[in-house]
Amino acid sequence: MKAEIIAVGTELLLGQIVNTNAQYIAQGCAGIGLNVYYQTVVGDNRERIRQAFTLAAERADVVIVTGGLGPTQDDLTKDALSELLGLPISIHGPSMEKIEAVFRDRGLEMVKSNERQANVLEGSDPLPNDNGLAVGIGLTKDGTHYVLLPGPPKEMKPMFDKQAIPWIRAAMGEDASPLYSKMLKFAGIGESSLEHRLIDLIEVQEDPTIAPYAKEGEVSIRLTTRATSEEEAERKLAATEREIRARVGEYVYADRDVPIEHELVAILTASGKTLALAESCTGGMVSEMVTAVQGSSAAYRGGIVCYTNEAKRELLGVPAELLEGEDAPGAISAQTAVLLAEQALERLGADYALSVTGVAGPGESEGKPVGLVYVGIAVRGKSAQSAKLQLSGNRESVRLKAAKQAFYLLWQQLKA
Amino acid sequence: MKAEIIAVGTELLLGQIVNTNAQYIAQGCAGIGLNVYYQTVVGDNRERIRQAFTLAAERADVVIVTGGLGPTQDDLTKDALSELLGLPISIHGPSMEKIEAVFRDRGLEMVKSNERQANVLEGSDPLPNDNGLAVGIGLTKDGTHYVLLPGPPKEMKPMFDKQAIPWIRAAMGEDASPLYSKMLKFAGIGESSLEHRLIDLIEVQEDPTIAPYAKEGEVSIRLTTRATSEEEAERKLAATEREIRARVGEYVYADRDVPIEHELVAILTASGKTLALAESCTGGMVSEMVTAVQGSSAAYRGGIVCYTNEAKRELLGVPAELLEGEDAPGAISAQTAVLLAEQALERLGADYALSVTGVAGPGESEGKPVGLVYVGIAVRGKSAQSAKLQLSGNRESVRLKAAKQAFYLLWQQLKA
Repeated sequence: MKAEIIAVGTELLLGQIVNTNAQYIAQGCAGIGLNVYYQTVVGDNRERIRQAFTLAAERADVVIVTGGLGPTQDDLTKDALSELLGLPISIHGPSMEKIEAVFRDRGLEMVKSNERQANVLEGSDPLPNDNGLAVGIGLTKDGTHYVLLPGPPKEMKPMFDKQAIPWIRAAMGEDASPLYSKMLKFAGIGESSLEHRLIDLIEVQEDPTIAPYAKEGEVSIRLTTRATSEEEAERKLAATEREIRARVGEYVYADRDVPIEHELVAILTASGKTLALAESCTGGMVSEMVTAVQGSSAAYRGGIVCYTNEAKRELLGVPAELLEGEDAPGAISAQTAVLLAEQALERLGADYALSVTGVAGPGESEGKPVGLVYVGIAVRGKSAQSAKLQLSGNRESVRLKAAKQAFYLLWQQLKA
Repeated sequence: MKAEIIAVGTELLLGQIVNTNAQYIAQGCAGIGLNVYYQTVVGDNRERIRQAFTLAAERADVVIVTGGLGPTQDDLTKDALSELLGLPISIHGPSMEKIEAVFRDRGLEMVKSNERQANVLEGSDPLPNDNGLAVGIGLTKDGTHYVLLPGPPKEMKPMFDKQAIPWIRAAMGEDASPLYSKMLKFAGIGESSLEHRLIDLIEVQEDPTIAPYAKEGEVSIRLTTRATSEEEAERKLAATEREIRARVGEYVYADRDVPIEHELVAILTASGKTLALAESCTGGMVSEMVTAVQGSSAAYRGGIVCYTNEAKRELLGVPAELLEGEDAPGAISAQTAVLLAEQALERLGADYALSVTGVAGPGESEGKPVGLVYVGIAVRGKSAQSAKLQLSGNRESVRLKAAKQAFYLLWQQLKA
């Protein structure tokens, strides 16, 4: 079966944002054996949106559209499809109630235009939006299956996985030959060295397929196979997974698509242990990532962002001699990293503590190069240790890699 | 004049890579007053590539294509265009010599297929590639201007700027009157209420155009006009900007595309003032956003992530009576927010301090609803204040909105 992905939004045509939605949807389509032949981007223009729909309906069986479901006058996706298919628009009761409730809870008066976000087309299946106000739509007309989703990725992605994929599979019926996937997540190893150690497997891959990819300081491998039963799939995937683990198993922190901090919170919670943090160059990023995990409050006591030397002295008792002066190791040193971790452990009464101090850039600091980062790790009842990293990339990327590396070091500790 | 951007590559359709080339080219087109109406992605399939070209030639005056110029059998862009326009392919001498030289220098034997990278179409202008082997093409046929560029961004981007843009401008001739844009950034007001207050302007907009959009807790309006000179553009944009500011000026924190925390760091640095933070529900996100700004170390002293009540007591001296017990206001209260801000100010010796405490969700806390957030703000020499927010969305979204709202409150203070 053929699919076409349409992204609606003038901000895409002006190059203000990158069309990451298309990639996400394309991966999802591949996952259910749906062949994407075209991706299209069109602006917030009713006539051109309608033309894009017309063309897509000629070229594809499934037309997946993102964007243009918002409250404003240039959100025209539903109007254009209604016009094209001659299906009247009506307001979806439950979605309307949800929108009203949201405004009520916030003590705000609802603007009339917000009603547009509850619009559905006659005969369509509403696709609920758990992270926003605009309801999505699944609709089959004249043999073409249309799926309309909102543009903001944080709304679109969960809706696509939870609502659109099942709706499409049902619409595809028999054509959806079942694909089974398994994700292996790696930490502490780069994409290229991982690929290097698996290259012979990757080159001869057929079934299961082996797809490595890297994003935001993490490296993953997705194993995918087509099978008639879950059991058969597991058997086929397990053999390949064993081979991969035999070579690089030490770097595998999870066999599903979760960030490493998610695993850490789970391990800490399960063992009733707690974590504390002391951050310099990451400036709160490590703490933000830990607390982004639901339920992290059970395992995380808190952290200190000691961005200045004064803060390191006053909040964490790092002696001035260590930080300043001719022969002092300085704030960016193994000694400081160790002390920061020890102090965070004590002052927050935690079982484990991580510290990060380094040079995120753009400029050097203490005459030390951009990308030089020390991670300190303290474990109650043991002597604290540190690791020295030399990371590449811009400020954001150095900070992110430093955070992920710190998590990997803690993960090794917890596994030990 | 109208343009269409076509990216050729099955890896895009499979979602293996994001189409960043389209964004880069789209920005470049806007810069020379070329209106992009569509972006298309098509796979490495000769027939479908030809169809995409045919369609683009009908819809646009300038067709800019990336990808499919490599040496392999599935690099078909030039072949497809040659077929479509009935123009024979020949080898471009200088490009061929360059390819041979590269192989010679590397001591490698040149594979025959590499000759394909020197292919040009009869009557086309070769566009040299300084960072790769595949030569580009500029070609005008039947009133349509075609530009063919390689897919790898590190080859495509410099070629687009240095070769394609001048070629397109020449081809466009008189039509190239550039677009000028100005971004207004808003905080403390939602997208729909902003649009509600500007709806009459937006509905009659022609020149300049007025495009509102929202992303990650921020709302922006982009004003765009076409003008023959910077002065003319400024004059046209200024009139519309005045009208907008007259209505919602209080919410405008910047007249260019920067996040509000960027403005805060700039204002603090300029006035030699410093900031401290105390975060509970945002868990370090506010600190992370501040330190993501280059040069923030001049204005940011540090922060404390007091994720537990113990941390609030031990690191920030919040009395237990305030936090626990029958009639205690609790951690999520105006009183606690105020005290956290005051204590952060003192302990970090800053001029301003922000605190955030609330319920990010998914579940309620202290019997208080998800989205209830208190922001405390302390200013040296003044008595601290707090603001109560009721935010919507999931955990991530509540945290992000809380952070942006906190920044907005500080911004108001700094402006006062």
